[in-house]
Parts: sequence; structure tokens; C-alpha cells
Amino acid sequence: MYELGVVYRNIQRTEASLADALGPLGSATVHEAMGRVGLMKPYMRPIYPGAQVSGTAVTVLLQPGDNWMMHVAAEQVQPGDVVVAACTTESDDGFFGDLLATSFKARGARALIIDGGVRDIKTLQEMDFPVWSRAVSSKGTVKATLGSVNVPVVCAGALVHPGDVVVADDDGVVCVPRSMAAAARDAAEKREANETEKRKKLASGVLGLDMYDMRGKLAAAGLRYID
Amino acid sequence: MYELGVVYRNIQRTEASLADALGPLGSATVHEAMGRVGLMKPYMRPIYPGAQVSGTAVTVLLQPGDNWMMHVAAEQVQPGDVVVAACTTESDDGFFGDLLATSFKARGARALIIDGGVRDIKTLQEMDFPVWSRAVSSKGTVKATLGSVNVPVVCAGALVHPGDVVVADDDGVVCVPRSMAAAARDAAEKREANETEKRKKLASGVLGLDMYDMRGKLAAAGLRYID
Amino acid sequence: MYELGVVYRNIQRTEASLADALGPLGSATVHEAMGRVGLMKPYMRPIYPGAQVSGTAVTVLLQPGDNWMMHVAAEQVQPGDVVVAACTTESDDGFFGDLLATSFKARGARALIIDGGVRDIKTLQEMDFPVWSRAVSSKGTVKATLGSVNVPVVCAGALVHPGDVVVADDDGVVCVPRSMAAAARDAAEKREANETEKRKKLASGVLGLDMYDMRGKLAAAGLRYID
Amino acid sequence: MYELGVVYRNIQRTEASLADALGPLGSATVHEAMGRVGLMKPYMRPIYPGAQVSGTAVTVLLQPGDNWMMHVAAEQVQPGDVVVAACTTESDDGFFGDLLATSFKARGARALIIDGGVRDIKTLQEMDFPVWSRAVSSKGTVKATLGSVNVPVVCAGALVHPGDVVVADDDGVVCVPRSMAAAARDAAEKREANETEKRKKLASGVLGLDMYDMRGKLAAAGLRYID
Amino acid sequence: MYELGVVYRNIQRTEASLADALGPLGSATVHEAMGRVGLMKPYMRPIYPGAQVSGTAVTVLLQPGDNWMMHVAAEQVQPGDVVVAACTTESDDGFFGDLLATSFKARGARALIIDGGVRDIKTLQEMDFPVWSRAVSSKGTVKATLGSVNVPVVCAGALVHPGDVVVADDDGVVCVPRSMAAAARDAAEKREANETEKRKKLASGVLGLDMYDMRGKLAAAGLRYID
Amino acid sequence: MYELGVVYRNIQRTEASLADALGPLGSATVHEAMGRVGLMKPYMRPIYPGAQVSGTAVTVLLQPGDNWMMHVAAEQVQPGDVVVAACTTESDDGFFGDLLATSFKARGARALIIDGGVRDIKTLQEMDFPVWSRAVSSKGTVKATLGSVNVPVVCAGALVHPGDVVVADDDGVVCVPRSMAAAARDAAEKREANETEKRKKLASGVLGLDMYDMRGKLAAAGLRYID
Repeated sequence: MYELGVVYRNIQRTEASLADALGPLGSATVHEAMGRVGLMKPYMRPIYPGAQVSGTAVTVLLQPGDNWMMHVAAEQVQPGDVVVAACTTESDDGFFGDLLATSFKARGARALIIDGGVRDIKTLQEMDFPVWSRAVSSKGTVKATLGSVNVPVVCAGALVHPGDVVVADDDGVVCVPRSMAAAARDAAEKREANETEKRKKLASGVLGLDMYDMRGKLAAAGLRYID
Repeated sequence: MYELGVVYRNIQRTEASLADALGPLGSATVHEAMGRVGLMKPYMRPIYPGAQVSGTAVTVLLQPGDNWMMHVAAEQVQPGDVVVAACTTESDDGFFGDLLATSFKARGARALIIDGGVRDIKTLQEMDFPVWSRAVSSKGTVKATLGSVNVPVVCAGALVHPGDVVVADDDGVVCVPRSMAAAARDAAEKREANETEKRKKLASGVLGLDMYDMRGKLAAAGLRYID
Repeated sequence: MYELGVVYRNIQRTEASLADALGPLGSATVHEAMGRVGLMKPYMRPIYPGAQVSGTAVTVLLQPGDNWMMHVAAEQVQPGDVVVAACTTESDDGFFGDLLATSFKARGARALIIDGGVRDIKTLQEMDFPVWSRAVSSKGTVKATLGSVNVPVVCAGALVHPGDVVVADDDGVVCVPRSMAAAARDAAEKREANETEKRKKLASGVLGLDMYDMRGKLAAAGLRYID
Repeated sequence: MYELGVVYRNIQRTEASLADALGPLGSATVHEAMGRVGLMKPYMRPIYPGAQVSGTAVTVLLQPGDNWMMHVAAEQVQPGDVVVAACTTESDDGFFGDLLATSFKARGARALIIDGGVRDIKTLQEMDFPVWSRAVSSKGTVKATLGSVNVPVVCAGALVHPGDVVVADDDGVVCVPRSMAAAARDAAEKREANETEKRKKLASGVLGLDMYDMRGKLAAAGLRYID
Repeated sequence: MYELGVVYRNIQRTEASLADALGPLGSATVHEAMGRVGLMKPYMRPIYPGAQVSGTAVTVLLQPGDNWMMHVAAEQVQPGDVVVAACTTESDDGFFGDLLATSFKARGARALIIDGGVRDIKTLQEMDFPVWSRAVSSKGTVKATLGSVNVPVVCAGALVHPGDVVVADDDGVVCVPRSMAAAARDAAEKREANETEKRKKLASGVLGLDMYDMRGKLAAAGLRYID
Repeated sequence: MYELGVVYRNIQRTEASLADALGPLGSATVHEAMGRVGLMKPYMRPIYPGAQVSGTAVTVLLQPGDNWMMHVAAEQVQPGDVVVAACTTESDDGFFGDLLATSFKARGARALIIDGGVRDIKTLQEMDFPVWSRAVSSKGTVKATLGSVNVPVVCAGALVHPGDVVVADDDGVVCVPRSMAAAARDAAEKREANETEKRKKLASGVLGLDMYDMRGKLAAAGLRYID
């Protein structure tokens, strides 16, 4: 994150099968499986509901009001990537619209995660190109100042290295470091397996108090029932 | 609101017919009928559009990052209830997801109102379990510190006593105290009756200026028309 | 914006054909065509997705918690107008609901842009009366204090004169001054014409770097590629 | 909190000696002593640093942009009171300035706590009349709509009944219900007594880890030290 | 506000004696005297307390992350001016520091009002060069994109024309249009004269209820006193 | 940042002389010298004005509403360190007060940087222990859940590794990575040397336009002067 004016061309992407496996598990389950770290701030919202994506991160560091680096990033995109764009300062400007989305999509990008603004959202939905952003804004940008591509970035409070896995859905966006992806998938799948059974029990009226065996701990903590 | 570590089991619920009657009147009409008090802050938004709910409040006081009391609350839920969850501090964490929703629904809860975050929102919509919240977040929580169930709480700026009626729709969330529920229903129904007629007049081109007889008062207040 | 208690009845509306032509071009393209000025703050969001509107501004200056002037404004509305409401202070109150919408619609208004709150949003969507607002709130208002109608207002950070063109869609809201409307339309149409061709190229895999001939400028600015 | 247009003249104030004793203990210690409840949101800040106040609450419920009830409240103030003002909606308007402060002070009020804006803050500091508020604003208000005086209010997220004790200093504002004031004072004094000794130990280099005997619990929770 | 890349060199400044007279009256009194319009948003705060300034506006329209136009503006400053800087988008970047302040001061500027960030605030206080801003930030800026100088701008929600009077103190910032300056001064001075007398009465214990003769109106509005 | 429940005891601190040299240069100059990266968000504010600090980072990762790890961190502090505390979620709770400050100070810590809340700020000022925080809050915390000490953290948007240099003053907080500290110091000192001369010139009335030789570039960019 501390280098400006550079583009790293050779990044180590997480294995595609791993990146693909994490998406369907969902951001909440993956985040839980990782020990509740790596989550972007909840101000990051999808521009339309229902999209569920995972992929390997190509990172972009933008300057405020300037989307020059997005064009540089497009060339670095490979099929299965998710572009993750941070800015050197907080900005709601519309750094990204349907033209860039067309280019990103042509290169094989699956989504954009941007700690900034985005525009042409109706067209983006028609194109089925999902974006998670901090804002929607018609405000266009200039092309005047260098940032970087494929350096580590802090995006919405989460550290993202190029090649990490990004998982995004209606609940939010989680970054899974490359070195943790296999473990996160395994833990998340285990969680999910458990959840199906738990869901059945709860649906039948069993209480979490009993299913999780909480009554003793609650009493030990001093919980009092008053009639 | 000033008691921690307690669960009140016997609460006085507003009569079901009253609680049920208030929902279809809508939060805006009910709020107006009450004299414009009892509204939660407008940052409370539904996780999907179109839900319209009313029910009797089961209240929960949570600790930050801790959803232990949600499980305790589940046992206190009866059919027709709406769970209202406040937190001892501002938090966007995802205190609630599809497992708890399954349990709440099995107990007969109609909705959750939470001054905090919620996750699994796609599944919640599929389950048709509406939630009004301050945030959506994948962030899970621990189970370590006691709060309370069925104590009065301040939720998003509104005081809610257990058994009060909560009315929630796309416009927001209103709390109707048990002692005011009958009067609020009567006043709201009267408002609604009037509105149908007013709507017709306005649709026909009659101006509010004339229908509400405002011209005199505006002139008296000094309004000047300039050609 | 500095006059209270006045209603200007004769305002100079931008020619209807111009006002109508700007809507389909979209707020992002129009804003870009104007040189990136005139945009309202991105906190202004549509109450439902998909609406796309342009029209001539009838302006309203409201007092906090008071919607009296909305009724006065209704009389000034002509077919093709968009009502633009500002408030003398920041307020999320629900200044506008389905009754006023019925009246506005009967007068020929196409939409409301309000730097405040709005309610009855479900009904407004059923009526197909779009609103862009800073908040949704059930909170009703009083009718006690004079504001103005058809004075220049600052709405969500943008200066709007009565008769200016307002363009609103999912990306945001732009105000086009009357004197700039023709030039803005011409420039926006030119941009759009270019965009179709650009989109095709980008979809075929041509990079923006090449299409916009950026490589030389990037190198001159010092961009380094690292393998 | 659900009554408008009323003034309760006879309220039960917490005993003066109790109210006076809580101030010097400080909002943080008192809040801790109460079990971490009753705190107003941290957006409530003093208009100048260094003030430390406690007193019995006279409550005011204001309408947005309207300070009529502040004048009504002045008459209800007795020496030793702190005025606590809430608003039916979020507002940053300047409901209070040096004239009202002169009147409040003449009546014996010690401070104002307002979930709204305040002005003339330089003069207020010269007068040594402290205010905790959500905003500073030159914006004046009208006198047109009734609120209430001495009804329970929710102020910045905390429920305040008339006669409760309010403790305010640079750290924030806590409300101590009348029925809890004696217990809160006792618990807070005990805390403070302990703190002096703890402070000495910590200043001498003893670690909290040892003083609070945390090492075993941390190890049991699984904390690992890595060299 | 709709012109970029221009500098107006000959602006019509409000007469100096008028501009000077408004400062000591204070932003709250002047704002009240103008009928409660023209106030900047309350997020505009002084970087240190106690400064009280008025002067004629030299306006600057900045691009995000770019302070080039500040240097252009310096040349247009005359003794008695206050620089008012807006940005085409919301930005907290530090557009202004001690070097520019040295230059502005050398030209005779009295203060900066900026809807953006500022840095070197300790030095600015030592230099006694007051700034009202939306943020403090170490973040520097580039010099790459044209804005404008001495066009009308919307700064923190207030419309400011070059040559208008700006009044700023601890309570906030008000813009007085040139054409209203004389009337605003007269009205404000009248208000102030009244206030001295009112203050004396209130200090002696007379209630606003009696001094403003409110009891009848309150009763007519339905206020009930309950013992 | 992705490890919980660990404490790294042996961290590589930046050389003390380097860490000490960066403080007096100030956060704005250091940030500029680094190419405008590494800045924490401007919501991080000092609890009292005037403090200017630099030191080597000991990092803490906190859980919401839980300050257990602060006690663990105290043991890892060495003279010359600055504690940098992040939280796994956004929280304004008062994680830190005068007791912990006493302990930190006894260990040789120079300051605390915390993306959370702090309390006892009056005492902290008396102790001359500066804190930069996102909030001030009386709200205390529990000690129930493990975080980590001396793992990389994202604090207010900036990545901080243990041993990095942190520079904090009234303008904000910058993190200088250990590997960049020498270069940052050199560049910052060069900037500062230049600034003294520039300041003199500007104070004498020379314009930045001339001193930085901007007129040609502005004309080339199309700037027009209008009389």
C-alpha cells in the first residue's frame, strides 16, 4: 500500500477451485469460519440485491476524483478475478461506470469492490456486473495522477493483497488471504454442514438454549428469571 | 432499561386484536394519529421492501458484539410477537441470522426490530421473515455477557416496553404503548377514512390550499404572491 | 434563496423539448457533459429503483418539520415540472406522502426531489410517482411557518433556480441551468454517440489504455511495470 | 414521552445530597457503577472542556426548529436542576442561546443537556453555563408548536425521567434513575476508593495482568505467546 | 457555479464598513436578522475557538484532492477579504496549510472558509489565521485540474457570490448577500440593542413567558399544566 | 491481522533515533514526504490540542466492547512505544481510561492511537498522556474475548505493522513503515528546509503562482482571466 506509480504484473492468485468454492458459502459463514476477521465495513453495499460472487483480487489504488488506474487495472485482469479498488482518501465520486464494466467483463472480471462511488448502476444490473461500493454517484473523474495496481490495499477497513480471495454477497464483503483460503473453505463447509441440521431442529421448535446447552452457563453468569 | 441479567417471563401484552389492527394502518398514519411521537430513527430500514407488520414487543437488551440474549429471548416469544432488540452501545455487528430467524419463526415471532446489524438477509427474505435494522453485516458475535429480556429498552431512539405494539413497514417503525393502542387505532382509522375522500378530491385537481382552507391563514402569516 | 414568505408565479421554464431530451441521457452523462458540476450530493437516493425523469424545476423552501409550502407549491405546478424542495436546515422529517403526491400528480408534476424525508413510499411506488430524498421517515409535519416557492434554493448542495432542468435517475440528481440546457443536451448527445462505439470496442477486448491512447501519458507520468 | 402539550409541575426530585454527590465521581465511574447502562450517545459533547456537573433533571420535549417549550421549562427550574431537552426528531438547530441561559441560570439551573444544537457558545462559556449538545449552530428557531415539560424523554438514546440525576463531564452524560441514585453513589464511591490504590500500583510498574490476576484466564482462553 | 477554468478579476465587494460592522454582531444574531437563511451547515467548525471574523468573499471552486486554484485565488485577494472555498465533490483532504496561509495573510485575507480539510492547524493558530472547515487532515493535494475563482459557489449548503459578506465565529458561518448587507446590519443591531435589556430582565428572574407575553398563546394552543 | 489469540513478543522496532526524528517534522510533512500514503482517516482526533508524538508501534487487536487485550499489550510496551489499537468492528466504546494510561506510562508508552473510544480524558490531559481516538465515551468494557497483540492491524484505514513508526499531532496520524522510515525522514527534512525559505517569500508578498512557476501550466490547461 505504500508504493505509488507501480503495476505488479505477476501476482500469485489463490487456486481457482478454492476461490470458486468460497463464494457459495457466503460472506457470513466464511467470515465466521475465519474467526471473525477480514470483513470490510458494513457501509459497503451491493448496487443491486442477489449477487453472490467470489474471485481472486486484482487491487487498485486510486487517487481522489481520478480513475486513471482503473484503465491500467483492466489489462491485469484475468478470468475469475474480482477488482478491489481503494482510494488514498475517502471519496464518493463515481470512479466506475458501464464502459469500464464492459472492459472489465470482457477481460473476465466477475465484480468490482470499490471504497468509492459508482455510476450507471441500472446498466450494470442489466449487464449482470455486480459492484459493492460505498456510494452511488453520477460524478465522473479525471485521469491525471498515478496510483498503483496490484499493491496491497486497505479497502473499507480490510487489508487485501493481490491474489487473495474476495467473497461478496448481500451481507457484505470478506477478504480471505491466500494462505488461509483452504482452511477457511474447510472450516466454512464444516459450519455449513452443521447448520443444516441445526436449522431443522430449530424449525421443529427446539430452542437454541437447549441445542447449544446454554442454560447452565447462563445461570452461572447470574441470569435471573422473574415471573 | 436499567436492569441487567434478568428475564421477565410474564409480560402484559397488548390485546392481539388491537396489535393486529394497527399494522395495516401503516407506520405513518399510526404515528400521525399518536401526535407524532414514538417513532424510531429513520436509519432503521427494512432488509427487503414490502413487508408490513405489527405485533406485541418482546424486548432484548444486548451487549456489543454479543448475541447471547437473543437465544434467551427466543424462549419468551409467543405467536404474534415482534422481537425488539437494543444494544448497550451503538453497534453494526450482525447479531442475527437465518438460524435465529428459524427459531424465532418456529416460536411464532413475526419480525425483528434491531438497533444493530443483521446477516443472511437473502435467506431471511426467502423465509419471509422481515427485519428492520440499522445495518447489514456479516460480522458474527460471541456469547459471553449477560443483557436482559423483557425490560424496557430504548431502541433507535424510541422507548419500548414489553407488550407494547410495534408497527413496521417501508416507512419506518413506530412503537405504540399498550395504554395508547386502542386510542391510536381509533384515531388512525379515522384518519384513514378521511384520507380516501381527500385523495379523491386531490386526484380530481382540487388543491390542498382550498381543501384544507389554507389561503386565509397563509395570507395572515404574510405570504406574498409575486407575478 | 434569501427571501421568505414569497411565491413567484411567473417563472421562466426551460423549453419543454429541451427538458424532455435531457432525461433519457441520464444524470451521469449529463453531468459529465456539463463539466462535472451541478450534481446533488450522493445521499439523495430514489425511493425505488428504475425511475428516470427530467423536467422543469418548481422550487420550494421549507422550514424544519413544516410542509405548509408544499401545498402552496402544488398550485404553481404545471405539466412537465419536477418539484425541488430544500429546507432551511437539515431535516429527515417526512414532509411528503401519498396525499401530496396525488395532488402533485394531478397538477402534472413528474417527480419530487427533496432534501428531507418522505413517507408512504410503497403507495408512491404503486402510483409510479418517483421521489429522490435524503431519508424515508414516517414523521409527519406541521403547517405553521412560511417558506417560499420559486426562489432559488440550494438542494443537497446544488443551486437550483426555478425553471432549471432537473435530471434524476438511479445514479443521482443533476441540475442543468436554463441557460446551459441546450449546450448540455448537445454535449451529452455527442458523448452518448461516442459511447456506443467505445462500448463495442471494449466489449471486443480492446483496452481503454489503447482506445484512449493512455500508454504514453502514463509512462511520461512515471508509471512502472514490475514483473 | 408520549404526551404532548402538558407541563408537570410537581416532580419528584432525587434528594439534593445524592444528586450533588454523583457529579464529582464522574460519568465514567458512575456509568460503570450502574452496570454500564444509562449512557447518552457519545455524540453528546460539551461546548467547552472542563465542566463537571450533576443535578436533578427537568425534562423538555421540543418540536423540530421550535424552542417554545424551553421558555415554559424555565419556570419549572429550581436551584440544582439540570435541563434535559429532547426533540421529536433529529435536529441540529440552535434551540438555545445566551438569553435562555441567562434565564435558566437566574432560576438556578446548572447546565443544559440537549439532543439538538446550541448557539452563543462563547458567551455561554463566559457565563460559565455548560451545555452538552449534539451540535453547535447559529440557526434560530420559531415558537409555534407545543411539546411538553417534565414528561419522560429519550435524550440521545437514554431514557430520562423528571427528577432523575444527570451526571455530565468531558467523557459524556449519564442518567441515573432516582431509584438507583443511592446505590449508584455507593458503588461509584467504592470503585473510586479502589482506583486510588490501583493507580499507585500501576504507576509503580505492576501490570494489570498481575494486579487483576488475568494470566490464568487468558491462558485458559487459549492465548499464545510467540517469541 | 457552473463555470470551470475561469477567474473573475473584478468583483463587486460589499462596502468595507458594512462588512466590518457585521462581524462583531455575530453569526447567530446576523442569521436571525436575515430571517434565518444563509447559514452554512453546522459541520463547519473553527480550527480553534474564539475567532470572530467578517469580510468580503473571494470564492474558489476546487476539484477533489487538488488545491491548484487556491494559489490562483491568492492573487485575487485584497485586504479585508475572506476566502470561501467549495469543492465539486465532498472531500476531507487537507487543501490548505501554513504556506498558503502565509500567502493569504500577506495579501490581506482575514480567514478561510473551506468545505474541505485543512492542515498545520497548530501553526495556523500561532499565526492567528482562523479557518472554518469540515475536517482537519494531513492529506496533501495535487495541482492538476482547473476549477474557478470568483464564480458563485455553494459552500457547505450556502450560496456565496463573490463580494458577499461572510460572518464567522464559534457558532458557525453565515453568508450575507451584498444586496442585503445594509439591511442585515440594521436589523442585527436592533436585535442586539434589544437583547441587552432582555438579558437584564431575565437575569433578574423575569421569565421569558412573561417578558415575551407567551402565556396566552400557550393556553390558546392547548398547553395544560398538571400538578 | 488475521490471527486471533496470539501475542508476538519479539518485534522489530524501527531504530529509536529514526522514530524520534519523525515526530517534530509533523504528520502533514511526513505524509507528504511519503507520497501521500499511510494516513489514518481524519475522524481520528486528539483528545486535547497541542500534543505532538512519534514512536514505535505496539499493536493491539480488540474485540467490540472488550479491552482485555489492552492489559496484555501493556506488558509488551517498551520506552518509546506508541500503542496502536484497532477493533474487529467499528466501536465507540471507552476501551481506555486513566488506570490503563497510568500503566502504559509506567511502561514507557508515549501515546495511544485507538480506532475506538476513550474516557477519563480530563485526567489523561493532566497526566500529559495523549490519545488520538475516534470517540470519547464513558462506556466501559468487559474482559471476555481474545484478540491479539503485535499482529499487523488496520487502524482507521491505515495498515500498521508492529515496530512501524507512528507520527501524530493536531493534524492527524500517519504510519511510516519501518522500511521507509529513513527515506521518509530524509524527504521530510528536505521539505521542511525548503518550506522555511518559501514561507519567507510568501510572507513578503511573492505569489505561489510565481514562486512555483504555475502561470504557464495554468494557461496551458486553459485558465481564462475575465475582467
